[in-house]
Parts: sequence; C-alpha cells; structure tokens
Amino acid sequence: MQQWAQAGLADQAPLHDARPDLATAVMQSRRLSRELARPLSDEDQVVQAIDDASPTKWHLGHTTWFYETFVLVPHLQTYRVFDDAFGYCFNSYYNAVGARHPRSLRGLLTRPSAALVRAYRAHVDEALAALFETGLVAERPELARLLEIGVNHEQQHQELLMTDVLALFAAQPLTPAYVHACGRGIAKADVSELPVWQHRDGGIVGIGHQGSGFHFDCEGPRHEVLLRPHRLATHLVTNGEWLQFMADGGYAAPVHWLSDGWATVQRENWQAPGYWRLVEGAWHQMTLRGLLPVELDAPVCHVSFFEADAFARWAGKRLPLEAEWETAAADIPVAGNTLGRGELRPMPLTTADLANYAGDTPLQMFGDVWEWTASPFVAYPGYRPVEGALGEYNGKFMNGQYVLRGASCVTPDGHSRATYRNFFYPHQRWQFMGLRLAEDL
Amino acid sequence: MQQWAQAGLADQAPLHDARPDLATAVMQSRRLSRELARPLSDEDQVVQAIDDASPTKWHLGHTTWFYETFVLVPHLQTYRVFDDAFGYCFNSYYNAVGARHPRSLRGLLTRPSAALVRAYRAHVDEALAALFETGLVAERPELARLLEIGVNHEQQHQELLMTDVLALFAAQPLTPAYVHACGRGIAKADVSELPVWQHRDGGIVGIGHQGSGFHFDCEGPRHEVLLRPHRLATHLVTNGEWLQFMADGGYAAPVHWLSDGWATVQRENWQAPGYWRLVEGAWHQMTLRGLLPVELDAPVCHVSFFEADAFARWAGKRLPLEAEWETAAADIPVAGNTLGRGELRPMPLTTADLANYAGDTPLQMFGDVWEWTASPFVAYPGYRPVEGALGEYNGKFMNGQYVLRGASCVTPDGHSRATYRNFFYPHQRWQFMGLRLAEDL
Amino acid sequence: MQQWAQAGLADQAPLHDARPDLATAVMQSRRLSRELARPLSDEDQVVQAIDDASPTKWHLGHTTWFYETFVLVPHLQTYRVFDDAFGYCFNSYYNAVGARHPRSLRGLLTRPSAALVRAYRAHVDEALAALFETGLVAERPELARLLEIGVNHEQQHQELLMTDVLALFAAQPLTPAYVHACGRGIAKADVSELPVWQHRDGGIVGIGHQGSGFHFDCEGPRHEVLLRPHRLATHLVTNGEWLQFMADGGYAAPVHWLSDGWATVQRENWQAPGYWRLVEGAWHQMTLRGLLPVELDAPVCHVSFFEADAFARWAGKRLPLEAEWETAAADIPVAGNTLGRGELRPMPLTTADLANYAGDTPLQMFGDVWEWTASPFVAYPGYRPVEGALGEYNGKFMNGQYVLRGASCVTPDGHSRATYRNFFYPHQRWQFMGLRLAEDL
Amino acid sequence: MQQWAQAGLADQAPLHDARPDLATAVMQSRRLSRELARPLSDEDQVVQAIDDASPTKWHLGHTTWFYETFVLVPHLQTYRVFDDAFGYCFNSYYNAVGARHPRSLRGLLTRPSAALVRAYRAHVDEALAALFETGLVAERPELARLLEIGVNHEQQHQELLMTDVLALFAAQPLTPAYVHACGRGIAKADVSELPVWQHRDGGIVGIGHQGSGFHFDCEGPRHEVLLRPHRLATHLVTNGEWLQFMADGGYAAPVHWLSDGWATVQRENWQAPGYWRLVEGAWHQMTLRGLLPVELDAPVCHVSFFEADAFARWAGKRLPLEAEWETAAADIPVAGNTLGRGELRPMPLTTADLANYAGDTPLQMFGDVWEWTASPFVAYPGYRPVEGALGEYNGKFMNGQYVLRGASCVTPDGHSRATYRNFFYPHQRWQFMGLRLAEDL
Repeated sequence: MQQWAQAGLADQAPLHDARPDLATAVMQSRRLSRELARPLSDEDQVVQAIDDASPTKWHLGHTTWFYETFVLVPHLQTYRVFDDAFGYCFNSYYNAVGARHPRSLRGLLTRPSAALVRAYRAHVDEALAALFETGLVAERPELARLLEIGVNHEQQHQELLMTDVLALFAAQPLTPAYVHACGRGIAKADVSELPVWQHRDGGIVGIGHQGSGFHFDCEGPRHEVLLRPHRLATHLVTNGEWLQFMADGGYAAPVHWLSDGWATVQRENWQAPGYWRLVEGAWHQMTLRGLLPVELDAPVCHVSFFEADAFARWAGKRLPLEAEWETAAADIPVAGNTLGRGELRPMPLTTADLANYAGDTPLQMFGDVWEWTASPFVAYPGYRPVEGALGEYNGKFMNGQYVLRGASCVTPDGHSRATYRNFFYPHQRWQFMGLRLAEDL
Repeated sequence: MQQWAQAGLADQAPLHDARPDLATAVMQSRRLSRELARPLSDEDQVVQAIDDASPTKWHLGHTTWFYETFVLVPHLQTYRVFDDAFGYCFNSYYNAVGARHPRSLRGLLTRPSAALVRAYRAHVDEALAALFETGLVAERPELARLLEIGVNHEQQHQELLMTDVLALFAAQPLTPAYVHACGRGIAKADVSELPVWQHRDGGIVGIGHQGSGFHFDCEGPRHEVLLRPHRLATHLVTNGEWLQFMADGGYAAPVHWLSDGWATVQRENWQAPGYWRLVEGAWHQMTLRGLLPVELDAPVCHVSFFEADAFARWAGKRLPLEAEWETAAADIPVAGNTLGRGELRPMPLTTADLANYAGDTPLQMFGDVWEWTASPFVAYPGYRPVEGALGEYNGKFMNGQYVLRGASCVTPDGHSRATYRNFFYPHQRWQFMGLRLAEDL
Repeated sequence: MQQWAQAGLADQAPLHDARPDLATAVMQSRRLSRELARPLSDEDQVVQAIDDASPTKWHLGHTTWFYETFVLVPHLQTYRVFDDAFGYCFNSYYNAVGARHPRSLRGLLTRPSAALVRAYRAHVDEALAALFETGLVAERPELARLLEIGVNHEQQHQELLMTDVLALFAAQPLTPAYVHACGRGIAKADVSELPVWQHRDGGIVGIGHQGSGFHFDCEGPRHEVLLRPHRLATHLVTNGEWLQFMADGGYAAPVHWLSDGWATVQRENWQAPGYWRLVEGAWHQMTLRGLLPVELDAPVCHVSFFEADAFARWAGKRLPLEAEWETAAADIPVAGNTLGRGELRPMPLTTADLANYAGDTPLQMFGDVWEWTASPFVAYPGYRPVEGALGEYNGKFMNGQYVLRGASCVTPDGHSRATYRNFFYPHQRWQFMGLRLAEDL
Repeated sequence: MQQWAQAGLADQAPLHDARPDLATAVMQSRRLSRELARPLSDEDQVVQAIDDASPTKWHLGHTTWFYETFVLVPHLQTYRVFDDAFGYCFNSYYNAVGARHPRSLRGLLTRPSAALVRAYRAHVDEALAALFETGLVAERPELARLLEIGVNHEQQHQELLMTDVLALFAAQPLTPAYVHACGRGIAKADVSELPVWQHRDGGIVGIGHQGSGFHFDCEGPRHEVLLRPHRLATHLVTNGEWLQFMADGGYAAPVHWLSDGWATVQRENWQAPGYWRLVEGAWHQMTLRGLLPVELDAPVCHVSFFEADAFARWAGKRLPLEAEWETAAADIPVAGNTLGRGELRPMPLTTADLANYAGDTPLQMFGDVWEWTASPFVAYPGYRPVEGALGEYNGKFMNGQYVLRGASCVTPDGHSRATYRNFFYPHQRWQFMGLRLAEDL
C-alpha cells in the first residue's frame, strides 16, 4: 500500500465512510481526480491510445466543464466562464449544448495545456466552494441534485481515466507502470471448502431503484419481474479457469460463439483476454502495476461480452440476467476490491475477505471486475429520460449494449450499488470486465 | 391480378388452405421458388446488389443444397450428389458442414449457370419425390422434421429472394419492375370510424410456441412473462404519418434518435425511408411494381429500427414489446396482404378487409410489413439450440438484433404465426419493415 | 486451333492483313467484339469481378455508345438514339459528356439486358453501315479520324474484355475455361544457342509517332531523347526464371522492393504472380483455357510493376526505358502471339518463331505480354491533349502510372506498333503483363 | 526578428556562413533541433496530428538514434548505448536495422518522456564531442561521410519538425502560434517593372551533382539531358493569383485536373490551399505565426502537385521539368527566405531582395516554398543505391512521387543546393510547397 499512498490516494478515506455531506463529497471527488492524474506526466495526459479511450486531460477538463455548464453558469451569478473556447473542447456528447470537438480527435488537443486545465479545475473548484458558501444548495433542491450528478459523473470519469491510462500504457513499447507493484504478501484464502453455487428461487421480484438516494435515470423505475429458479456461482471466473478454456481451443471453435462474436475473434485475431501477452512462453498481462505474470486465482479481466458468453457456453452454463444479479446483491454490503483499496487490479480472495463469510451469498459482487450479464441494456418499463440536456445521459445509449453489474478495482468507492447498471458494447474489453456463471435449475 | 397470375403464382392456392400433407407442401414450396424466379432474366439472378442481399440464383441453389445435405444424403441411399463443388458455393453459414464461398462474393458466381442451378433443382426435386415414395418419411420422425424445416427454410429464402430483387432493381438506373403495376382499382376502406387504440390488460401471460406444430427453435420454450397494462395501435403507421415526421424535421433532430441511430442517419445521409426518391418534387418509392408515387394510406415500409424508434419517440409513444404483440395476435387469424395475394407491396386497408371486422383487435397484424418491436432478439428462458449443424440456425444470431413480428407482403402464405420471431439489425431496412405504435396505460 | 475457330474468331483473318479500308476495319472490329462475347453466357457478361475490371456487357455497350455519341449523333442526320438512358449507363469517364453510372457499380447493371445490348449494337452497326453509304466519310476528314479512333478504342476494350473475363473466371470456385485447352502439340524452340543480350548504342534518337498513320495523342509529338549505351534481353523473363526468384525468397526480402511495392506485397500477401495457385504442391495458373500447370518456358505473366522491378533488382539488372524499347522495336515487324493467333495465353518460343530469325534483334517484342518499362507515363515534350471531350482520352491519366510496351496474347491484331504507349498503375497485375531485362553498358 | 531571436534561433548564424568545419557543423545542427523544440510544451511534442507527420519528440529521438546507430556504435569503442529499447522506438524505416514501432502509432509514445529524450540527446552529443576529440574523424573518411549524412539527415528532420508542428497547431481549436507574428514592417518590392519570364535555350545540358561536396545519392550521377527552348516565370505563383483560379471555379472544373487529382479534390473536399479557412468571409491561413489573413503578394503555399498542375493547366502553362529548374538555378546563390531568416512563412518580395537584382534570372529560387516540378522522382541513369542500411535512404522511394526543387521558409540554411531533389506524393500538401510556371517556346 505504501507506494500507492505515495501516489496520493491513501488519504481519501472519507469516501469509504458513511455518506458525507454534499460539499465534502464534491470537494473530495474533485481532489481525487487530481490525485489520480498525479503519477502521470503532461505527455501521458494528452494522448488518446484507442478510439474508445479519452486522454486524461480530457477527462479532467470535461468533468470540470460539466460543473461549469450545468451548475455554475445557471446558479452562481458571479461566476465568470474560464474560457469560452473550452466548451467546444470538452463537451462529450450533449447535442443540446452546442458543437463539440470530434471524439476521435481528442488526442490531438495539446492546447489547452495540462497546466491550463489544472488552472481551469482550480478556478471551478474555487467557484464551487463559493457556491457552497452562498447557501443556495440548501434552498434549491435541483441544484443539490445537479451537484450529486456532478459527483457521480466525475466518479464515472475517474474509472474511465484509470481504464484509459492502462490502454495507453499497454500501447507503450516500454511497458510502464502507473504505480509499481508492491511487495506486500497476499494471504490467499483457501476456497476449496466454499460452495460452488448459490441457489435462488424463482417468482416475482422487484428490481430497480426507489427511494431518495442518488441513482441514474436508467436504474428506475422500480418494477416487478418474473424470475425462474436458478443458481449463481459463488466466485468470479478466474484466470486459471480461462486458461482451461484457451487450452481446450476455446478461441478456435466457432461452435461456442455468437456469430458476431466469431467474426470479431477472427477480425481482431483474439487468442486471449485483453492485454495478455506471451513473454518467453509464459502468459503475462499489462496492468496498472506494469507487465505481470497472470495470477491464476485472480478473476479474469478484460474479456468482452462475446468472450464471456462463449466461455459460459463452453462451460455448459450461461451468464446471469441482470435481475438475477440484482436480487442476489440486494442484501450484500457494497464493498470489495475497489479503487480505495489501491490494488488497481483484480485480486484473489484473501483470508481477510473470508473472515466473516457465512457461505450463503455470492462473493466478489462489488469490486475486482464489472460482471457481464446476459441482459441487453434497454429501458425499464415506464422509463422516461430526464428533461433537458442531461436527458441525453443514458437513454440514447440503449441500443446494442449489454448490462454489467457490480464494480471494479478502479471504481471509486461509494459509486456503485445493487441497482447500478453499467453498459458496454459486446466487443469492448478495455474496461475492467469479467464474469460470473449462472444456470437454470 | 392478371399479370401476377401470368407470373405463375396464382395457382399456388393450396398453401392458403389447411395444412396439406408434407409431400405436397414440399413440392409446392419447391415449385413456388421456381415461379418467383420466372420473371427474372438469368442476368438478374446472378447479381448481389448490396452486401445484405444474395443473388436469386444463390437462393435457388442454397435451398436445394439444404435438402441435398440435410435430407437426401443422410436418408436416401440411392441419392447421387449433383456436383461435389456445389457445397462450397451454396453453404450459407453452417461452419459445421465445411468451408464456404464468402458471403460478400456471392454475386461473382456466374458459374454454375442459372440453367445448371435449375437442373440442380430438378435433380433434387426428383430425388425428393423418390424419397416420398420410399415410405421412409412415415417411418422416421426426424426425417419428417427435417422436411418441415426444409419447407420453412425455403419459405424464408422466398421472402429474401423477393426482398433482394427489389434491392437489385432499385440499383438500376432504368428502374425496372418485377411485375408491372396492375390497373385493378382498390376499394380503400374508410377508417375514420375505427378506434385508434386497442387496450390490453397487464398480468402474467404465457408466450412462446408449444404443441406439435412446426416452429423454429427460438420460438420456445413457452414461458410466462409479466406484462403491464398498455395499448396497441389499431393500424400500422402510414406513409402519410411518416411524411409528417419528415416535415417536422424528424431526420434532422438528434433528440429523437438513439445515439447509434443518429450516427447512422448522418453516415448514410438518410432523409426518408428506403427506396424513396424525389421525382420532380414528389416522393416516389421503388417497389416490385416499379417506381410509384408514395401512397399516403399504405403502411410505411423500408424503415430501420432506428427510424421506427425515432418516429415513436417523436410521436410520444413507444414500440410494442414482442410479448405484447404476441398476446394481442394470439387469437387473430394468420391472414392478410402476404405473398399469395400478389400485391407485392404494402396496401391501404380495403373495404373487404373491414367487412367482418368487430373493432376490438388490432388490424394488419399479418401482412404488409414486418413490425419492429422494442425487444432485442435474445433467448427465451430455458432455450437450447438444436443439436448438430442445424443448431446454428438461430441461436448464434442472438446479438444486436431486434425482433419483428407479423408478416409482410412478400412472406409466403402459411409461413408465419403469432409466435414467429423475425429479427434484423437496427440499421437494416432493405426488408419489408414497418411499425405499429404502443404506449403504457 | 479448332476450338478457337468454333468460338468464331478464326475468320477474322483480314485484321492480320495490310490495312483494310476504313469501312471494313470498322465493321470487322464491331464483329470481333460480338465474337469475343460469344463463349460467354449472359450471366458471365454482367458481373464485375474486381474494381479494375468491367463487365463484358458494359464493354459491349460502352464501345457502341462511343460510336453513337461521337460519330453518329454529330454526323448522321437520320440517326435515332437507341435509348436516351444508355448514355448514363455506358459513359466511362468523359466528364464533358454528362453524368454517368459509378465505375465501381457497373456490375449491378442487369438492365439493360445482354440481349438488349446486342440489339443496341445491331442498331448502331446498321447506322454505321448507312453512314458509310452516305459518302460523308470521304468528305469529312474529322469523321474518318473519329472512326479510326472508334476502331482503336474498341480494340482496347476487346483486350480489356478478355482480361476482365479472366479476372471473373479466376474468381469462380469452379475454375471455368473461356476456351478449353487444345491438344495441339507445341514445337518448342531450342533457345540455348541464342544470344542472351542485344547491344544498343547510345546517342540522340527520335521517338514518338509521326506521319499520317493512326496513333493516340500520347504517342506524340515525335522528339529527340538522349540514350546511353545499354543492352536489352533477347527474351522475355520466363516462369522458370520467376520460380528461381521465388525460391530465393524474392517475395520475402524487402531489400529488392520499392517501399510502396513492399507495402503492397504485405497488404496483398503476394507470394507468386497473379492467378497462380498451388494445386497438390504444384504451381498452376488460371488462364483463359482453364487452370493449367505453370509452363516453365513461357513468359511470366500477371506481374505488377512492383514485382517486375523487384525481380530486375534481384537479378542485378533493371527494366528498360520506354525510349530504349521503342528504338529497338522500330524495325521489327508487329507480329507475334497476339489475339488472332488464338492461344490466349503467353507461349514458349516455337521452332516456327525462330525459323527466319537472324539473332540480332530482341524476340517476343509484340505479343505474349505487355512489357513493363522503368518510365513513368508522362507527357512527351510539347504534348497537347486533343480539343473537346476526346481530349480526356489519355492526358488526364498521366500520373502515377508506368508505360508498358509491345502487345499481349489478347491484343487485337493490328492494334499495336513500336510507338504505342500502354500504361497501368504499379500495383496492377490483372492485365497480361510481364517484363524484359535491360542493363547499362 | 526579435521574437524569433527570443525563440533561440538568432545565434545560429554560422550555418549561413561558408562551410564550417565538420565538428562545428554537427554540434550546431544538434543545437538547432533543441532550439526548434524550445517553444513547444512536452505535450506539443508527443502528438502526431496526421499520418504523414511525426511528433517533435520522435524527430528529436530519431535523429539522435541515427548518430548512435550509424556513427557511435560502429566507431566509438567506449560508447554505451543509452537505452536498448530506443532502437525499436526511433527507427524510421531501415528494415536492415531491425523491427520498429509502426509509423502510424508514433503519436502514442508518451514514454520515453520528452525529458528523457532530451537526456538522450545530451548523452549522444557528449559522445559525439568525445568522438571528435579522438581524431578518428580525420583518419576515417567513411566516418566523416557518416557525420555529414548525420547533419544533413537532421536538417531534413528539422524541416519536417516545423512542418509537422504546423499540422498539429492547425488541428487545435485554439489556433495557437509557434511564434507570434512580429510587428516588423515589410518593405514590399514594386515588381511591376520586372520581366515576367526568363527565356532559356534548349540543347544538351549536364545535371546532377558532381565533385566532392555533400549530396544525397539520388542527386547523381551527373549526366546529360536534352532540353528544349522554354521559359520560366521570374516569380513564384502568389496567393493573389491563386484566388483568381479559385474565383474562376478552378476547384470545381474537372477539365483542369488529372484524373487522380480530381478524385482527390472530391474525396477531400478541397476548395482552397491547405490550412486556408474563411473567417467572417475573409480567407485566412494557419501559419507558424498563428491564423493570419492571406497575404496576396506572398507565394501560395500548401498546394499539392495535383493543385499546382491544375493551376498551370488553367493558366495555359505547365510546371517546369527538374532539369530546366536545375540549369536555371545553377549560377544563383543559395539564399533566400529560409529558416535562418526566421519568417517561418512565405513572404512577398522585398525591396532588399531586389536591391542588387539584374533582372536576368528567376527570383525566389531558394526559400519560401519548395517548387513542384513536372518530373516524377526516378533514378538518374546509372544510379546505384549506397551499400548497406543507408542504401534505404532514397532509392526505395522512387515511385509515385514528384520532384520539388529549391527550399522553403523552414529549410535549414545551408541544406539545399541547385542539384537537391526533394520529393513528395502528388496528393500531399502539408509541406511548405508552391509552384513556378513554365512554358515551351
């Protein structure tokens, strides 16, 4: 942990705690982004390694523009826009807010400089502090709501920032590390005594968010769904299990694959999970801690939906439905190997993880990797997008993507919950993504 | 109708009737494909107009190879394969059956000639007749099952054949007609008295196929789903309504569109449904009867899922779920403007259509156009692909596509049913596709 | 020869003879195109196998449109245009004459049908006959000039037609033959006694066309160039020699290749000349006579400029300059293995070829294959394009291409001459192309 | 000049002078690269704006790797390679020296950092200084030769560095300047009295380099060519003249264009020279001094060969042959608006330029812009590439490119000469390229 502490993240503990007040949450979240960028040079922050990724600097600027545009300009009368040209540079996809720099060219923006973006952040942070002092937040519920969105939006970009840094570093011939591997010994748990499956009854259950807590529009409305009896794996699929799939010719047998998946395998010449490479005959994986030997007991990571689905078919199982996952997770504490733990990569279960475990729920539900489900990302019954520009937030992406549940080793603490719906296209695997098996009873 | 009769289709009436015996069904279906190709020159039959389409000759050869490979070779001892090289030419996507000619190059196959493919058909038809005379069909249930699949498979290709001919003719500067427009006057119905909506209660309903009748694997297993109260439009959306969407800037306002849909609109420069073109200021559409003025009261056709979804959003409604559609269709006779009627394009409702209509069910459920639903094409709970090569039939396409229900003006009579699940990608619109609106109550 | 005769070409002998009068030349040339298409089905005639190729039907229509547009409409008052829509279909690249069907979509034109294009040809041929009867040709030198262009233009398309048929047939899994291989024994010459090189002095020489004979604009003006002493190979490079290049790793060693050539080799995965394929361990080549074993003593064919250049570099030699080739060819009869001989593929030298050979000139200068030179296709000093639409004929292609000299086994007899400049891009190899070595003294 | 001086270039005067000794030349050239990078942030130095360009950091590393690989490792026994991994990062295209990072991904290399590349430069510079102290350079002529190549190679990259910075800055929404425009008044010359043309006789002339001075392999061998009487324009074509071409519909009339050029115009939607943009109705151009109004009397810049050729055709003239240009330039001092002058953009002729002008030679032959010629870049008669890895220097690029002569406003002083052959593809225009007209007499 020591090196990680040096990287400046160790003191963000409050985010683990019970919900702090909104001003603290905003300012801590703003500080966390700065800290995440600290191990990176200005050069590292400007480049866009792959089309799916964005530069660190862009994440830093975009999350700041978000507060400026949706919070400060409408609500803080004294606010002075930092630079009118930044809107064009840092708008992501809000058609309603005006023209924007093309996504695929974000990596060309050497100007504004990283230093200027840091100044932009400081300018906006100062204004946010001033805003909190006005007392307006208490008066205007919609403002509090916007600030909550601001925090959660920035948390999403914190995860993307880390994910995109890995994509960048994996493209370097010099295989750099974001933080170097620490020597801390891991006390791996003996999992041989644990049950393999968790049985779940069928019936009508309620899913989706309700109540006053923060959630994204796509998490609601809460509604009833009909489940069939089934069981979920206690563990995430591990690298060791994935190597069996590979050894059995999993990547070479079309019978396991969806048609689009097989086409992707052939076009991309996939033969292993993302960032895996053979070094002198041994499988290694690029991680935020550098190029490391593949850890057999750790959850497999950087596999696409197509791969997860093929693995499940090969194993004679299937992926869980999102409703199955959510009902199983409903009573499990939202805690695990997330960003605050500082591992920055999926880890084997430790003796500490199992210390108080009763054996009757799935493990690793929050942390390590986002879990692919078999559920396409579609609207819940009765779903309506939020009015206004922020209505573009989730609804317009409800096509062609699949839902992932849980959290990953780079998800900011406190960001996820049982109803959280993450979503990506089935060919994407640069995120920290893995899987858990399920089957009908 | 006369010209259509001349084209040889008028005498296929038996397919409308109660289920004929299997031998008759096979031989009639075989004959129908021949008849559908008759208005085409050999040249017309060889070309592949767009990547999604296949040449007529390829459809004729592929459906024949299907019987040869899965029926005759395994079951008719005396059968002599027509030409060993044809397997390579006419396999579509069955990885388990060997190498195949690339899909995108099907239009290069000038050899075997159309005449030779006709001879191939005759050879296989003769063998099928011989097979029926052996009495084996009665003895072997799996053989009867394969023959039923053969008929249904060929019917699917009959629809594709017609669809692909339109794609080809729409690419001709000379705008030819497959069959020329007839002068028959249509007695358009007065629909002003009909209810706009059909109300439907919620609750647990069963959907999916059960019983002994033919169905594709993806139609089952039958299972329960939970529906909410809703209503379905009595009519399909018409060209006239679509023109209002266009006039209101529907194709220019990103707010109506899914993100992937908007990208498609811009990339393809869509400004109207497929095959529409302005001729001296008036909208026309290429049809199998040539380039005709757009008929305002006819159902809109050749719109993608993206367009259907945007239209629904613009109208403040939504697309139906496939379970909503299926329960509404459960008690409606499978009849309408399908291939046997010979119109070959979507038509306005006629007085004949309404003669016996009680006003309490949706209209136009089978025929005119396949109806986009909001449901991604995924496996029903408990779905298992068929074993063997035919297991590649539907399961491996369960990604990224949406379900369409009903039937179209080029669907062979008797091919569809309430549980039938058609499916296409959301950007595709070369099929005869349209939509019906729905909304929650 | 017999089968070839059956194909209808044997009686075209007059084109070998001394220059016939213009009417005869036009009508014989028109007939030859018809005859060349005769072994092909209508299906064969509609498909465009590769972007560089055009369908046979398009060649037949385009050459007819050329006469209609540039000869009949301006000069024959009674002429009735066959179909106004054909201009759009059959214009190749004359921007000045109006819009046109995109080149890459020529293979979609199933309409007009092959039969209608034959009728179009008959209509225009009749009008040409009528034109000759008016006596106008004698009165109007520019008309005679246009007719001469018409003949030469059609001859170019006759060669392309044959070349493009081979591209089409090579794309067929069934490997058809345009004309089947005849059993005629070839009396191969013993070339061991022949000199390997022909020495050529340097100095100022004149090249380019002069005088009244027909020639294309790019062949002139005649002008002086300064040559250095050099020598040209007596023979064309053979398949046997090419196999040595391959055995020596020629396709795997970047040192032999131009940078663009090496990129092409890797992108296209070239490992042998065009249309070569290994059949049970032995190299074969698709030819107009079907898939035949590679003939070691025949000239290598279907090699790109990049390959020719790499071969020459590997051999320690270079390609000839076009001026070197032209001065060597100036006194050699324009005769050899061209279309009229009916071989339709490059052939080894025969005893007949050497019967009267004095040993002091290069052999195989006209026929078998077009010979790549080291000369980019640029304007001769003082070159001016012809005025009017026909000015688009050659001048606008003077970029990025290289000159080839001689003639090939599918060049119509009488079409070539010592000053003739053929030209293609350096990556193209679907033409009948080969090479002859040269070196400085 | 002042700002430019501040940028650190003013003290490089020795490069203007008569040839300094080799050690001085090397060390000054090394220093110049550092100075050129000084106005750029580390972020600016890492990004690759277009495929044709390379990042500044890559230029700095590559030129250093060149000395390390070809000079220090073979010749300085005590030399310690800075980092073995850098060879992979900084090799450009020398297949003989090993694997290399793909050109199109150079912009991803955030590691090694700009700071580390500066340390790499310092390490190599120190070693070069040590090498000069050994006295080996005097003993080993091939070492002196390699050092001379090193200087000239680095000068080429200095020009590319500046060119690529402009490409990067032109891609920034914030339109930054490399150096801000100075207020220095330009004393524009009155050119109305100057002759428009310079007449040149024909005859046999010698071109190509000879003697002991440094030159690239492609500049020789010196040889004779035959020229025809012609004349060359006294001036370069100006922006004002180019605006006439635009006003006359030059970019919309295919008749002026080579076929490949017209395709490029349409694909790229070119309507003006590179980096031109309309700002409130007035044409501006991105320059190294920011976005400035187009200066009518300055030479047009950032035009491709296709545009230059079309302009010449529109004007009824042609581009010069490289031999015409070289003989005209043979007796003109190599001086003008090059890098040392610090303008960093093409400039109008000034009164100073004309102070001593006799009126009998072309002006602006060296400086402002490289001048497109009509000559494809091919080998001179008798050309042989250098043996060894450096043989890949020029010979393998002799395809599809055209020769440019002269020098540009970012060519390092002392780098060019009358025999210098620069070369680019006809569609490229990101270099500082323009044209001068010619015509036959």
